[in-house]
Amino acid sequence: MATIKDVAKAAGVSIATASRVINKSPHTSPSAIQAVQLAMNQLGYRPNANARALVNKASNTIGVVVNDVSAPFFGAMVKAIDTVASEQGKQLLIGSGYHNSDKERNAIELLLNSQCESMVVHSKGMSDEELYKLAAEIPGMVFINRIVAGLEDRCVALDNYKGSFLATEHLIKNGHRDIGYICSSHNITDAHDRLNGYRDALSYYGLAQRDYYIEFEEPDEKGGEQAMVNLMAKNIPLTAVATYNDYMAAGCMAMLQENEIRIPEDVSIVGFDDGLIARYIYPRLTTIRYPIQIMAAEAVKLSNQLLESQSIAQQNRLFLPILVRRSTVANIIPRTHINTETIRK
Amino acid sequence: MATIKDVAKAAGVSIATASRVINKSPHTSPSAIQAVQLAMNQLGYRPNANARALVNKASNTIGVVVNDVSAPFFGAMVKAIDTVASEQGKQLLIGSGYHNSDKERNAIELLLNSQCESMVVHSKGMSDEELYKLAAEIPGMVFINRIVAGLEDRCVALDNYKGSFLATEHLIKNGHRDIGYICSSHNITDAHDRLNGYRDALSYYGLAQRDYYIEFEEPDEKGGEQAMVNLMAKNIPLTAVATYNDYMAAGCMAMLQENEIRIPEDVSIVGFDDGLIARYIYPRLTTIRYPIQIMAAEAVKLSNQLLESQSIAQQNRLFLPILVRRSTVANIIPRTHINTETIRK
Repeated sequence: MATIKDVAKAAGVSIATASRVINKSPHTSPSAIQAVQLAMNQLGYRPNANARALVNKASNTIGVVVNDVSAPFFGAMVKAIDTVASEQGKQLLIGSGYHNSDKERNAIELLLNSQCESMVVHSKGMSDEELYKLAAEIPGMVFINRIVAGLEDRCVALDNYKGSFLATEHLIKNGHRDIGYICSSHNITDAHDRLNGYRDALSYYGLAQRDYYIEFEEPDEKGGEQAMVNLMAKNIPLTAVATYNDYMAAGCMAMLQENEIRIPEDVSIVGFDDGLIARYIYPRLTTIRYPIQIMAAEAVKLSNQLLESQSIAQQNRLFLPILVRRSTVANIIPRTHINTETIRK
Repeated sequence: MATIKDVAKAAGVSIATASRVINKSPHTSPSAIQAVQLAMNQLGYRPNANARALVNKASNTIGVVVNDVSAPFFGAMVKAIDTVASEQGKQLLIGSGYHNSDKERNAIELLLNSQCESMVVHSKGMSDEELYKLAAEIPGMVFINRIVAGLEDRCVALDNYKGSFLATEHLIKNGHRDIGYICSSHNITDAHDRLNGYRDALSYYGLAQRDYYIEFEEPDEKGGEQAMVNLMAKNIPLTAVATYNDYMAAGCMAMLQENEIRIPEDVSIVGFDDGLIARYIYPRLTTIRYPIQIMAAEAVKLSNQLLESQSIAQQNRLFLPILVRRSTVANIIPRTHINTETIRK
């Protein structure tokens, strides 16, 4: 492959001049630019990005750490970041952390070594302390879907608790009293927060919390199916189930339908995320919208501001989920049992 | 941040010795290794991966070009490549080509500039000629889901034609005569091959091909729904529909079910890909299995062999799809119209 020496020789200029043209430095004459560019094209010279990164002290990539890129939720997140990155002529470097502290640390380390100046990190395994230390070294590092203590300014997160509260409240307001919960078995704050939202909604409306109404499985279709199998085996008189995400809801629904249990006539279901699947399972899924696209875009914007040492607006970056009503919740009895008029908003 | 100079000073060794320890060169004394590693830890020194890449002439990343990482099919492909990469201690660098020649070229260029030694490319926009030239420059470049003329050895592909033929044949053998086809509107070989498989299966069994039985839309749930709306509007007496992929099938099914058209009693459906969604829409989808996981693993293996200049087995890397029978195809009439005994396998 051609080197910068070859280019300089072919263009009849010094290596320093060739280098200035390649790196688009000022103080280069139009004739030198023309000669060097011609030589580069003729020789098929590729400026080496690694060498350039050393000179510029930053590569042109945005590092992204996700749980697992094959999970559609993270696909949507990566796509949203990629959309903003493309507009800025940047490329993504993606690492998977699999909710595991060692793997997350390794992924961040690799991105750091590749000199990603911007970094959007979805970390669930590492401690606040460790992330705090790392962030001090990496000015363009921001966190998505997590609040790191002391770094609230650099976090873009969702109020998971509120989302699950809304889902459960919607079921209660539709007359449901026996409401199961299908939770993720991952030991992460999202799972704890969503479970607490479910629990607190029950308490708030004076309904009993029963641990045997709750099942924990992998947060995918298969896990949702297994959780529903477990709930059914216990012979609980459930009329509704709130779920950790749309995929668990889909698995749960397929299982019910195969057993000729009608949705929503026999059992009502609420999902969480509002991914594309929610609109295309049948009946269309009532769910909680996770605004991951605007959150991801906000994260990239925030990272850029941090890099450019701009003052960061002290805005609240805890996003609020909303309920999306579709066709999987039935109104089963009049709401006379609860006085919804006195309920806080 | 600490430099190699600081490390050498703190360790009481020369910069050259510190460099040899950091780069794990031979001819370093155990005492020097210990002193340098201690200094690195104390100073928080990070060997710069870009500098290392220049020395080693290769980075530790596998480049992957996909159509769109947010499409679950590509998520599964990336996951499969990531699994192999992790085992080798490598990181993925992912670029999106969006089936567009400029974007694909740009993505490959960026990966190349980041010195990805291995590259797994899913290209549909660029010409065979251009890919042939690039591959000559990049020894570790392999192609997935495409056969590039002259580079058959470096391609891992699926027999799309055969898959669609199988899907249509399965419907015909179940008595269907009026079979629609919902195709991708992307002008790529996959779409042409799958459509031809459908057409040729009809011809092979002596059935008429009718262009107005075919609709083209975006290859996702929304496109599938729109295509089914279009087919229904034409008032065609369809008893079955073969689709370009599972997502189009899901959109088509949701639309039919909302209109109280039963699957499979009224209309039979066959998907393509056998992604996770196929098992979790209801009724569970009869589809064609696209073995993307083993194909992706094969692509990484092939890339490694090319880099290590190993001789490459002259094996056939055109993978065969198979039919996965689930619950969306009904047998509607006896098969007396066709003599299936005389049919080639």
